Amino acid sequence: MKLAIDAMGGDNAPKEIVLGVNKAIKAFLDIEVTLFGKEQEINKYLEKSSRVKVVHTDDVIEGTDEPVRAVRRKKNASMVLMAQAVAEGKADACISAGNTGALMAAGLFIVGRIDGIERPALAPTLPTIDGQGFVMLDLGANADAKPEHLLQYAIMGSIYAEKVRGIKKPRIGLLNIGTEAKKGNDLTKKAYELLSEADLHFVGNIEARELLEGPADVIVTDGFTGNMVLKSIEGTAGSLFSLLKKVFMANLKSKLAAGLMKNELKGLKNMMDYTEYGGAGLFGLNSPVIKAHGSSNANALYNAVRQAREMTSHQVTTIIKKTIQKETKMK
Amino acid sequence: MKLAIDAMGGDNAPKEIVLGVNKAIKAFLDIEVTLFGKEQEINKYLEKSSRVKVVHTDDVIEGTDEPVRAVRRKKNASMVLMAQAVAEGKADACISAGNTGALMAAGLFIVGRIDGIERPALAPTLPTIDGQGFVMLDLGANADAKPEHLLQYAIMGSIYAEKVRGIKKPRIGLLNIGTEAKKGNDLTKKAYELLSEADLHFVGNIEARELLEGPADVIVTDGFTGNMVLKSIEGTAGSLFSLLKKVFMANLKSKLAAGLMKNELKGLKNMMDYTEYGGAGLFGLNSPVIKAHGSSNANALYNAVRQAREMTSHQVTTIIKKTIQKETKMK
Repeated sequence: MKLAIDAMGGDNAPKEIVLGVNKAIKAFLDIEVTLFGKEQEINKYLEKSSRVKVVHTDDVIEGTDEPVRAVRRKKNASMVLMAQAVAEGKADACISAGNTGALMAAGLFIVGRIDGIERPALAPTLPTIDGQGFVMLDLGANADAKPEHLLQYAIMGSIYAEKVRGIKKPRIGLLNIGTEAKKGNDLTKKAYELLSEADLHFVGNIEARELLEGPADVIVTDGFTGNMVLKSIEGTAGSLFSLLKKVFMANLKSKLAAGLMKNELKGLKNMMDYTEYGGAGLFGLNSPVIKAHGSSNANALYNAVRQAREMTSHQVTTIIKKTIQKETKMK
Repeated sequence: MKLAIDAMGGDNAPKEIVLGVNKAIKAFLDIEVTLFGKEQEINKYLEKSSRVKVVHTDDVIEGTDEPVRAVRRKKNASMVLMAQAVAEGKADACISAGNTGALMAAGLFIVGRIDGIERPALAPTLPTIDGQGFVMLDLGANADAKPEHLLQYAIMGSIYAEKVRGIKKPRIGLLNIGTEAKKGNDLTKKAYELLSEADLHFVGNIEARELLEGPADVIVTDGFTGNMVLKSIEGTAGSLFSLLKKVFMANLKSKLAAGLMKNELKGLKNMMDYTEYGGAGLFGLNSPVIKAHGSSNANALYNAVRQAREMTSHQVTTIIKKTIQKETKMK
């Protein structure tokens, strides 16, 4: 299996990207990796292996670049070359921790959409307090969505949860402002009907309040709401952790308490650790495209490789294609 | 100033409602209160005062009642009688900690909308980590909104922040999925333009991630998104606090640490305490209608009284009416 990886994407590139690849190459003997980026910098960290090669390029898409323009103009950027390797069949899947918008544009323009999928969706696995996590989509690939898009998100999420996460009959939930069937805005009311009629294990509306408790294996929502909710959760957790830190540093007594609880507090932070769950899949494209978190460390990148590998070996893209074709014919 | 209060609404009614009224009557010498509900139960807790009277009724709208139907059929419910007192001019403002949907229905059908306001909005003041808080609307009075509604929310929120919260030139923010002007869905892109052109101190898009840091004094959004974000924040804070509790109870060492930090942890919880900020105003109605939190204690109710009193004495409703009339004429 061949993976194309953007070595220059994210806050800790290329070091942590390359360290993650080193780890993955040792763990997964069936993968071959092509790294795209500045060869000299990559080689500082890369452990020699016959299963890794480097394609040199000086061009990089920055986090501040306007996504669509960057993908169109920086034709030799590491991310663009990575996507082209997939489009040309030289790689089965690709991973980047770089500019999210640019990766979505590269996915759409270079890797291409699956026939019948109207909108690709950004689908990370989010942590829950029981450690199981859940897949949520769309988290921002498209700001506006129609009810039919939410149905397609549910189908793709269900296939991913079953094949990659090993969940039989994944529970599909619709993010909404109340649990009753008639609750919501125009979009969620109509999506509720479509999901109820579909061949899915639909468990109904899920309120944002319950998300971290893990009420479903796949949660669908429009990209605007999904992005809002994700950032609300991140922002609240961040604010509370920084408050907590301040409280622990307040005086001698609290510092003593912090010392006593060091391990437990670390456990608390690990429980909410995104790096264990891999990256966010861009579902609905012709091949697996994984967006690793911008602040990915080696472990996060390693888990993104694992995820790309499982999406490829379980033929998630092929199954999505077939299911969507069947769905489209039925109409 | 005359206030009508539903003594039977919320999880802790009538006890905490009445205890809050006792406190308010002592603190604010210019208020007269009429309590609606079960006289015998109310009298158990009520301290005698010439400025409080009780209107007895046995009927109560429950939390589980279907809102619109309940308001239409339970004509003698404490909440309905309370709203009627306002509609008939027997009270200047009203407060209930009961069924939110029913209070919105009672506000709309009985108290009535201000001419020119298309949609009333639910507008609580949310806590920030600096203790200043901000007004956010709409938090769920209407699931769907048009750009013009968001402009009206901004106008109402700005007047409230200036008159009641004493903020000169309140900063108005638009909740959105990015800070740049062109970010967002159809609704927020159009609302951004309207807000930019309005006679308001518009500070641009605000991301959900920043909310608890207090980036604006008034944040506008549609009711669906607002409700989602509020519940995400509440849910995350709740999950983290319960995790933290578990961590502190894990073993003898952590229990010792918890003991050492008792006061600091209490301070942390108080910082996020909604009861200090009063209730959620239902903006856009002919008189102030305040929704106190369902789990209101005496202090929350007391603060809701303070809020209703300030909205009345600063003539917030009258100023909203005049501003909206001017705005409508300009078109």
